[in-house]
Amino acid sequence: MTPLPRILVWNEYRHETQHPEVAAVYPDGIHQALARPLAAAGFPVRTATLDQPEHGLSEAALAGTDVLIWWGHMAHDEVQDEIAARVQQRVLAGMGLVVLHSGHFSKPFKRLMGTSCDLKWREADERERIWVLAPGHPIAAGLGEYFELPREEMYGEFFDIPAPDELVFMSWFQGGEVFRSGCCYTRGAGRIFYFRPGHETYPTYYDANVQRVIANAARWAAPAGPARLSFGHRPIPIEPIGAGQEV
Amino acid sequence: MTPLPRILVWNEYRHETQHPEVAAVYPDGIHQALARPLAAAGFPVRTATLDQPEHGLSEAALAGTDVLIWWGHMAHDEVQDEIAARVQQRVLAGMGLVVLHSGHFSKPFKRLMGTSCDLKWREADERERIWVLAPGHPIAAGLGEYFELPREEMYGEFFDIPAPDELVFMSWFQGGEVFRSGCCYTRGAGRIFYFRPGHETYPTYYDANVQRVIANAARWAAPAGPARLSFGHRPIPIEPIGAGQEV
Amino acid sequence: MTPLPRILVWNEYRHETQHPEVAAVYPDGIHQALARPLAAAGFPVRTATLDQPEHGLSEAALAGTDVLIWWGHMAHDEVQDEIAARVQQRVLAGMGLVVLHSGHFSKPFKRLMGTSCDLKWREADERERIWVLAPGHPIAAGLGEYFELPREEMYGEFFDIPAPDELVFMSWFQGGEVFRSGCCYTRGAGRIFYFRPGHETYPTYYDANVQRVIANAARWAAPAGPARLSFGHRPIPIEPIGAGQEV
Amino acid sequence: MTPLPRILVWNEYRHETQHPEVAAVYPDGIHQALARPLAAAGFPVRTATLDQPEHGLSEAALAGTDVLIWWGHMAHDEVQDEIAARVQQRVLAGMGLVVLHSGHFSKPFKRLMGTSCDLKWREADERERIWVLAPGHPIAAGLGEYFELPREEMYGEFFDIPAPDELVFMSWFQGGEVFRSGCCYTRGAGRIFYFRPGHETYPTYYDANVQRVIANAARWAAPAGPARLSFGHRPIPIEPIGAGQEV
Repeated sequence: MTPLPRILVWNEYRHETQHPEVAAVYPDGIHQALARPLAAAGFPVRTATLDQPEHGLSEAALAGTDVLIWWGHMAHDEVQDEIAARVQQRVLAGMGLVVLHSGHFSKPFKRLMGTSCDLKWREADERERIWVLAPGHPIAAGLGEYFELPREEMYGEFFDIPAPDELVFMSWFQGGEVFRSGCCYTRGAGRIFYFRPGHETYPTYYDANVQRVIANAARWAAPAGPARLSFGHRPIPIEPIGAGQEV
Repeated sequence: MTPLPRILVWNEYRHETQHPEVAAVYPDGIHQALARPLAAAGFPVRTATLDQPEHGLSEAALAGTDVLIWWGHMAHDEVQDEIAARVQQRVLAGMGLVVLHSGHFSKPFKRLMGTSCDLKWREADERERIWVLAPGHPIAAGLGEYFELPREEMYGEFFDIPAPDELVFMSWFQGGEVFRSGCCYTRGAGRIFYFRPGHETYPTYYDANVQRVIANAARWAAPAGPARLSFGHRPIPIEPIGAGQEV
Repeated sequence: MTPLPRILVWNEYRHETQHPEVAAVYPDGIHQALARPLAAAGFPVRTATLDQPEHGLSEAALAGTDVLIWWGHMAHDEVQDEIAARVQQRVLAGMGLVVLHSGHFSKPFKRLMGTSCDLKWREADERERIWVLAPGHPIAAGLGEYFELPREEMYGEFFDIPAPDELVFMSWFQGGEVFRSGCCYTRGAGRIFYFRPGHETYPTYYDANVQRVIANAARWAAPAGPARLSFGHRPIPIEPIGAGQEV
Repeated sequence: MTPLPRILVWNEYRHETQHPEVAAVYPDGIHQALARPLAAAGFPVRTATLDQPEHGLSEAALAGTDVLIWWGHMAHDEVQDEIAARVQQRVLAGMGLVVLHSGHFSKPFKRLMGTSCDLKWREADERERIWVLAPGHPIAAGLGEYFELPREEMYGEFFDIPAPDELVFMSWFQGGEVFRSGCCYTRGAGRIFYFRPGHETYPTYYDANVQRVIANAARWAAPAGPARLSFGHRPIPIEPIGAGQEV
C-alpha cells in the first residue's frame, strides 16, 4: 500500500475534440482537469484516453494503478470488450474504481453492477443540491451538509443499479427529481465509487467540493493491502477434535 | 401466521382533541383514518390511544398483534418507559412495527434505532414528491414511479437513523431538501418500516397512495412465522469427525 | 400477481444422463425432484432443460414465468450467451431467480452479480450445518435455528459475490470452513436468491428443510406487481413554486 | 483529524483483580495488554477502568478521544446509565467505538444497537477459525484468508444484532457453531466495530492477528473529519426557478 494511491485518470476524450462548446470548458480534456487537483494534492497521477493503444489500459498500465478514475459518454461502445473485462478483473483483484457521471453506462461499470445502469436525464441548466446522507463517511470528509452546483444536467431515479453498500450522497434537482449520486460498492477485493456530477458542458470539475469528493473517493477506494484470495479445490480439512478433549 | 396480519393502530390522539384545525381534518382521530382503509382491505384492525390504561398496549393487547402502527408527536414523553420497552421487546420477538411521520421521535423507534432520529423540518405547504427507489419491493407494489402530496410538512436530511436495510422511498421537497421517507429494518425477528408522510394538519392519510403504502407495509412487516430464538449456554458440541471417515 | 408464482425449474440435466451414480439419486432428473414438492404445495410448475430448443427458455416461456429456479454444473458454457442475457433482462424486469448450488458459476448468475462467483470446494462427505442468521426472514419461515445435511460437498469462503442485501443462512462444515449459503439480492425490479446445498451425488433435494427453503424462496422472489420502470429523456420539470406562495 | 486517532482503552478490570487464573494471563489488566501494541504502533493511547471516577469516561476524557475500545463482562450493570448515554452521544457525534468480546452485552453497545445483543456460548477450549468475508476491507488488511485461535470460548448464532453494514469476519467453531465475529456499523457520524475474540482466560490479546485487527479497526473507526450535523427548524427554502429560466 502506497501512502497515496497511484491514480490513472481515463477519459474518452471525444467531446473536447469534436464539440467547441466542450473544448471551451475543458481545453486540454476532462482528464487533465481531473488530474491537476489530484496531482496538486500529492497523488501520483497519470492519464489515459480511448484512442491510445489498448485505450491506454494495458496490463502494465493497470498493474501500476491503485485507483482508476473513469469518464466516458459518447463512445462507450468503442471500448473493446476484452479491455472492459480486464478492468473488471483488476477491480475484483483489488484496484479501486471511481466512475464519474455518464460513466454509469460504461462497459466496466455495467459489467461490475450486473444491471442496466439506466436512468432519466434532462439538460435544463438546473440547480443540483447534493446532500450528505452519511456524514461520518470518509468520502464526505470536509464537506458541509450539502453543496450545490448552480447548473448541471439532471439525472433522475429510478437509477437501475444494485442498492449501494453505502449511500453517501443524494441529489436534489430543481425540476422535481432525486438521484443517488454517491454510491459505494465492494466487488471482489476492489472498491467502486460512483459519483454523479460532471456533464461535459459545465465547469463541474473545477468546483472545489467536487474535487474534494474525488480526492476523498480515491483515498477510500485505494486497496487496503494485498488481497489474499484463493479459489478451487481445498483438500485439507481440519483435524478432528481430539478424542481426549474435554468439551 | 394469519392470512392477513392482525393490526393495532396506535395514536397519541392529542392534536385532534386540542387543535380544532386538526380535528377538522381528522374528526375521529388519525387512528380511525388509518384503521378504516385497512379494515376495508380485510385486515383485522383494532386501535389504541395514549390515554387508555397502559396506553392500550397491555401484554395481552400486544400478544394479539402482528403489526403495530404508530403515530405520535406532541406527547412522546408521556409514553411510559416500561411500555416503550415492552413494544421494543415484542418487535425483537417478531411483531411488525410501522412508524409514521413524527413517530420518528417516539420512544419505541428511538430505542430500536439506537440513534437520535433527529431531522430538519419546515411547515411551508410544500409539494412532496415521493420517488420509488426499489421498484421490485413489496411495499412499492401498485405505485407508479413516484407519487405526490400537494402540501406537506418538509422533513430534511441529515436524518439520524441507521442506514436502512432497504431504502424504498426518497422524498423530494419543493424548497430544496431530500429525505429517506421509506426505510426498512429488521431488528431481532421483527420488521420495522418507517414512512414519512402524515403531518396532522394535512389530509395525507386519505390519500390513496399513502393508504396503499401502509397496507403494503403491514403485509411486509407481518411475522413470517414463529421465530425460533434461543440464547445462553449451549452445552453440546457436535461429535467429532469419525476417525475412520475418509475426507 | 398470481396467488402463487408460476415457477419454471431449469436443469442442465447432464449428470443424471451420463453418470449412473447421479441417476441413482435423481432417476428422472434434478428438475423433477425440485418440481414435485413445489407442485404438491400448489405452485404452477413447469420444467426446462439445456438440450431443449433455446434451452427451454424462449421469450414465451420466460414471459409465463414468475420465478425461475436454476441448477447447472458441468455444461455452463453450453448455455448460449444470448439466452443468458435474456434471463438477465427478465430478472431486471421483475422475474424472480433462485440459483442453486453449482449454479453459482452459471452465466445468468455471474452476469447479474458482476463478480467471479468463485469459491473453495471439497468432496468429502462432510456434515453441513446451516444456521439461520435472519430468523424473521420469510425464507427462513418454519425452520429451526439450524438444520443439517449429513453429507454434502463443502463450499468455502471467500465466495466472490457482492455482499448480499440480506444474508439468511450461513453454513458450517465439519472440515473447518464457513459459507454464505443463503443470499438475497435485488437487481432491477427482480429478486434473486442463491441457495448453496444440492451436490448431484447426494439426496439433498429430498430433504424436507431444503424443500421448505426453496418454496419459501419462490414466494419471496415472486414479483410484487408490475414494475414501473422508465428511462431516458424526461422533458418536463416540475412547475416552480408560485411567486405569491408563502414559505 | 489527527494522523493516528487518539485511543482510549476502557476495561472493566474486575476479572483480573478477582480471579487468579485471569490475573495469570493478564497480570496488569486486559487494558494494558490492549494498549501496549497500539502504543508500539504509534497510536496515542490512554486507558480507563470502571472503578475510576465517572468510570474514567468524563466529558473531558471523551472529548480527547477519537476511538474508544471497550472490554467488559461481569459488571456491565455497574456502568452508570448516564455515562452509557454519554458514550452513545459521543459516538453519534463522530467518536469511533470498538467493542470487544463480552462487550456485546455492555450498555453502550446495546443502546446503540437497539437489540438484545444476546447469543449462545460455551466454554470448551474449542478452536476458533476466523474467516475473512471482506478481503478488500481495511480491517482485514494484512491478514490471510483466515486465522485461528487454538482455544477460545464459543459464541454462536443467532446473535441478536442488526445486520451489520459490513460483515468482515465469520467465525467457525469446532463444536458446530458459526458467529458473525467482525461487524461494522455507522451510527450518526460515528463508526462502530464489534470484534468477537477475547475471553479473559485465554491469551487472545497477545495474538498478532488479533492485535492487527484491533489496530486496523481503530484506524477505520477514526472520525473522518468534523461532522457537520444540524437538526431542527430549517426556515429558508430554495428560491424558485426564475420565471424567465428556460428548462
